Amino acid sequence: MERKAKLAELSLRALLCALGALAAALVGTDSETRTFFSFQKKASFTDMEAMVFLVAASAAAAGYSLLQAAARCCCLAARPSPRAPRLARWCVFACDQALAYVLLAAVAAALQASVVAKRGLPELQWMPVCDLYGAFCRRAGGGIACAVAAGLAAVGVSFLSAFNLFRLYGGGGATTATAW
Amino acid sequence: MERKAKLAELSLRALLCALGALAAALVGTDSETRTFFSFQKKASFTDMEAMVFLVAASAAAAGYSLLQAAARCCCLAARPSPRAPRLARWCVFACDQALAYVLLAAVAAALQASVVAKRGLPELQWMPVCDLYGAFCRRAGGGIACAVAAGLAAVGVSFLSAFNLFRLYGGGGATTATAW
Repeated sequence: MERKAKLAELSLRALLCALGALAAALVGTDSETRTFFSFQKKASFTDMEAMVFLVAASAAAAGYSLLQAAARCCCLAARPSPRAPRLARWCVFACDQALAYVLLAAVAAALQASVVAKRGLPELQWMPVCDLYGAFCRRAGGGIACAVAAGLAAVGVSFLSAFNLFRLYGGGGATTATAW
Repeated sequence: MERKAKLAELSLRALLCALGALAAALVGTDSETRTFFSFQKKASFTDMEAMVFLVAASAAAAGYSLLQAAARCCCLAARPSPRAPRLARWCVFACDQALAYVLLAAVAAALQASVVAKRGLPELQWMPVCDLYGAFCRRAGGGIACAVAAGLAAVGVSFLSAFNLFRLYGGGGATTATAW
């Protein structure tokens, strides 16, 4: 059971790392230049704060997950003192929670921006821009889809690290927790 | 200690209820009509999906917190079976986590929309609308500020319900958890 839980956590962290890196790469390199009559117009992800926030959050998620996975792989054979892992798991739990909150907030902000970019808001005279910058929007859409999946993986990771923390409290904790 | 934790949780839930209701009321009744030359233009919170999402999430947070606080007050004297509260706390923990994620996502989306409404996006020919609809934007800003505070309260509530769940696992769980 413990082996399965560790494997699931490692897989989720690897998935989060890959999806976060892919989302950051897709959105972070997204720009398109169009020529209208005699002048050029360029759309870039830096035009919207939400997209910059998404790139930063996705890259941070990928980097953090990579570090976590590397630390887990390195420490598999080590047997630390009984007090150390509890403090470490509290830190990991707090970081995982914060990561899940920040990543989901970034995804929500980017989704809001992309919906307005796709549909426009005629009531406020905001025209849709995806008709003009098709390739830009498709690439951003792919990046946001990866970020949504990364956000769900982050929620899964935060639940698993909570489960790992629960098991430290009392001898019967692990077996009771698996019953739910 | 247990009495303080319960009091803190009840206070946070009451705060979340009040702030959620205030945010929903402020944003949910937000509209402004202006007359430009001979025709009227109306800005309403329903123009933006992000604001509708914020109203729904804030109202749900207020309703859920009210129900939770009422249930806690009603059950204070009751002494349920040892298995029932563990299942109930798992449910409460899951609901609190979901509420915190959804509320923070709604706040992030609304913040993104409000930043664009305030500053505009000249690169995409989206003009700022707060110069035209000043009262509308001020009221929305107040609602979003309440929702941000409600989101932070929701994060606090989710941590406290996690703490309440931890204490069910092992006899020494409560005292150890308070040391961190």
